[in-house]
Amino acid sequence: MRERRKGFPRLTRIEDAQDMLRKRILHRIMEVEEIELIVATGRVCGEDVRSPMDSPVYDRSAVDGYAAVAEDTFGASPTNPVELRLVGRIELGVDPSSLPEIRRGEVVEVQTGGPVPLGANAIIPFEHARRIGERVEVYEHVRPLQNISRRGEDYRRGEIVLRRGWLIKPWHIAALASLGFRSLKVLRRPRVAILSTGGELIEPGEEPVPGKVYNCTRPMLQAMLLSHGAEPIDLGIAPDDVELISERVSEELARVDAVIVTGGTSVGKRDLVPEALSRISEIVVHGLAIRPGKPAGFATTSGKPIFMLSGFPVAALIGFQELVLPALELMLGCRFDPPPRIRGRLIRRVASPPGVRTYARVKVFRGEGGEILIEPLRVTGSGILSTLTRGNGLLVIPEELEGFDDNSEVEVILLSPLFEGDAA
Amino acid sequence: MRERRKGFPRLTRIEDAQDMLRKRILHRIMEVEEIELIVATGRVCGEDVRSPMDSPVYDRSAVDGYAAVAEDTFGASPTNPVELRLVGRIELGVDPSSLPEIRRGEVVEVQTGGPVPLGANAIIPFEHARRIGERVEVYEHVRPLQNISRRGEDYRRGEIVLRRGWLIKPWHIAALASLGFRSLKVLRRPRVAILSTGGELIEPGEEPVPGKVYNCTRPMLQAMLLSHGAEPIDLGIAPDDVELISERVSEELARVDAVIVTGGTSVGKRDLVPEALSRISEIVVHGLAIRPGKPAGFATTSGKPIFMLSGFPVAALIGFQELVLPALELMLGCRFDPPPRIRGRLIRRVASPPGVRTYARVKVFRGEGGEILIEPLRVTGSGILSTLTRGNGLLVIPEELEGFDDNSEVEVILLSPLFEGDAA
Repeated sequence: MRERRKGFPRLTRIEDAQDMLRKRILHRIMEVEEIELIVATGRVCGEDVRSPMDSPVYDRSAVDGYAAVAEDTFGASPTNPVELRLVGRIELGVDPSSLPEIRRGEVVEVQTGGPVPLGANAIIPFEHARRIGERVEVYEHVRPLQNISRRGEDYRRGEIVLRRGWLIKPWHIAALASLGFRSLKVLRRPRVAILSTGGELIEPGEEPVPGKVYNCTRPMLQAMLLSHGAEPIDLGIAPDDVELISERVSEELARVDAVIVTGGTSVGKRDLVPEALSRISEIVVHGLAIRPGKPAGFATTSGKPIFMLSGFPVAALIGFQELVLPALELMLGCRFDPPPRIRGRLIRRVASPPGVRTYARVKVFRGEGGEILIEPLRVTGSGILSTLTRGNGLLVIPEELEGFDDNSEVEVILLSPLFEGDAA
Repeated sequence: MRERRKGFPRLTRIEDAQDMLRKRILHRIMEVEEIELIVATGRVCGEDVRSPMDSPVYDRSAVDGYAAVAEDTFGASPTNPVELRLVGRIELGVDPSSLPEIRRGEVVEVQTGGPVPLGANAIIPFEHARRIGERVEVYEHVRPLQNISRRGEDYRRGEIVLRRGWLIKPWHIAALASLGFRSLKVLRRPRVAILSTGGELIEPGEEPVPGKVYNCTRPMLQAMLLSHGAEPIDLGIAPDDVELISERVSEELARVDAVIVTGGTSVGKRDLVPEALSRISEIVVHGLAIRPGKPAGFATTSGKPIFMLSGFPVAALIGFQELVLPALELMLGCRFDPPPRIRGRLIRRVASPPGVRTYARVKVFRGEGGEILIEPLRVTGSGILSTLTRGNGLLVIPEELEGFDDNSEVEVILLSPLFEGDAA
């Protein structure tokens, strides 16, 4: 590799940085709050939840059909049907203990979910039988227990239904509701403060000023935090002053779970952030072997992380995904969903420096023949946001490769849905 | 195929049902509301947004380095460096028009994002140069325009940045913020009412009653709607009365964008929903060739949809994903993200009736050797929720297959993150 004359003394590989995260971030979020089930999607389960009951609480039919004695149906076939006597119908919602027992030769009509009466040991689906007045002709045998959900088959009383650390999904909510719950204890939201640095920044909504640029990285990070169940706290734009930056971060870290400082994390003269952080914390990693996102890293103090991310949005996004999300997972003991991925054919070669993991922004679209095509977008610098609006994917080029040739089959992270038939 | 003696007269294939959705749902959500950027993730962009300016507004350095006249560096190499004179440093945030012009033989230090001074046409990265007092030795040439983001390279004034119908992501927020926006017009949330039917239902939180079951499908659907940016409206549990159901749905449909009726959609005697809906709307599809989820369908009135979904949660989930989500996409003109998928090896064969699309619930985990393994879960009926808590994936078996053999390599929809080393 080329000698570095000015720049980061050493670039850390992303896996090594993530290993250090795991070793150094000791802070854990333990407090729980009880919330209504229907708003729990995306929150993290705060306790092992056990079933308070057997579910179903009685043997239940899994189909619409006739509750019967299985043995009565043996030998039934379309050419040689078995005839049974229909003695009633079970309404959903009736107390199972009030149902009369059925005897050999009898069947009772039952809907999916209805209780199986005493005496019956299988359900004949409607499709395999025909009703003729008070008689039912059966065309196919059922085995004992066939089409019956046994008491406790779904959950047994005392069994763990959801585990602490699970990211709650709508079907988890259904499982809890089916057991009578209407609320759930979830871990409180992680609080993450964002301090923007850079004398060139003005806030969106302000009048443009020659030479100043809008602080677009902060709102992106706020939105990223919100969509991962965290609470962003905006600390505004810090002055370019080592003392003030370290005071502000140190003060805030007592109140929050993590601080993100953006900008000023390179190694130029005005990059005060590493200096400011080194006064109040131990810098664990500074400079990642990734592109974009190199000037990123983290420090820790009392087991809590302070992240340094680029002020440039694309670089900050990669740094957020590779450092901040794993840190949130550690603090919450959870796993976020992986992003959707898609395979396709690269239509132009893409290069990456050796030893560096490159996140190439690409456009993923369906070509005329229906084939998924992947076009790398040309960029200059990590400030070019249009690669994430004209483009819709990230192609990760691992450290050990110097790129991919055109026509390679590659897998990309899909940031937004596929463009259809748009090769522009 | 086996003759059906009682049941749905005809099962519709899912693609055909979705085609009919596209033809019959004419209602579109047009109203927009202006919201703060940072809460816009997951909402649908309500207008084509054009850039109010060139971005960057000036030629900008894409690296930390020295602004130079590219031609001065031609022929530079590590063994034969070119020496240039350092005449200053550009601070971020200064007015570009105030910068002195640089001349041949001169360089000016500039940070990433800083303006390129007049006279310079390339940036020499720090890594390719060394400063010695007021001199800079350059070890590699730069081409004209190298490492410069040109004015308007990201967005040109008037260019469309985001399009109506795009699902907003954090990086879209960054793009808008970089152009000075702090708010965005998004389509209002779709309002979807849920009417639960079934005399056997009680609400979560109530005391258990023998024979009654908790209404767990409603909270799951509410959570699904919320996580797709829609506003759920709970219409409670309807009595088993055709007249009352049709009145309630018809009344509500005037106020909302869609109604979902759960339960009572099979073809048993007590399945009143199709009858109720046929009085106020045209039933387009009833009975899908899917498993679970068969007793699903939809009706329309004045171009608005009324969905019939199973009262059983797993079946309702499939029906929601296959009918309600595409309908929301139609009404909003958007595309939701595809779910994450993963490939692995099936460790047990799984069967599906011919002509039916089966959504087999599976457990996806990493085996001892690191291989992704997929275990189909045994079930009886679509009421078994534990397949979505013990399991974490859905394997879709298409209509034309009767299943997959064990050891097949298959792709599954990942509902929750992979279980690690847990073959239980």
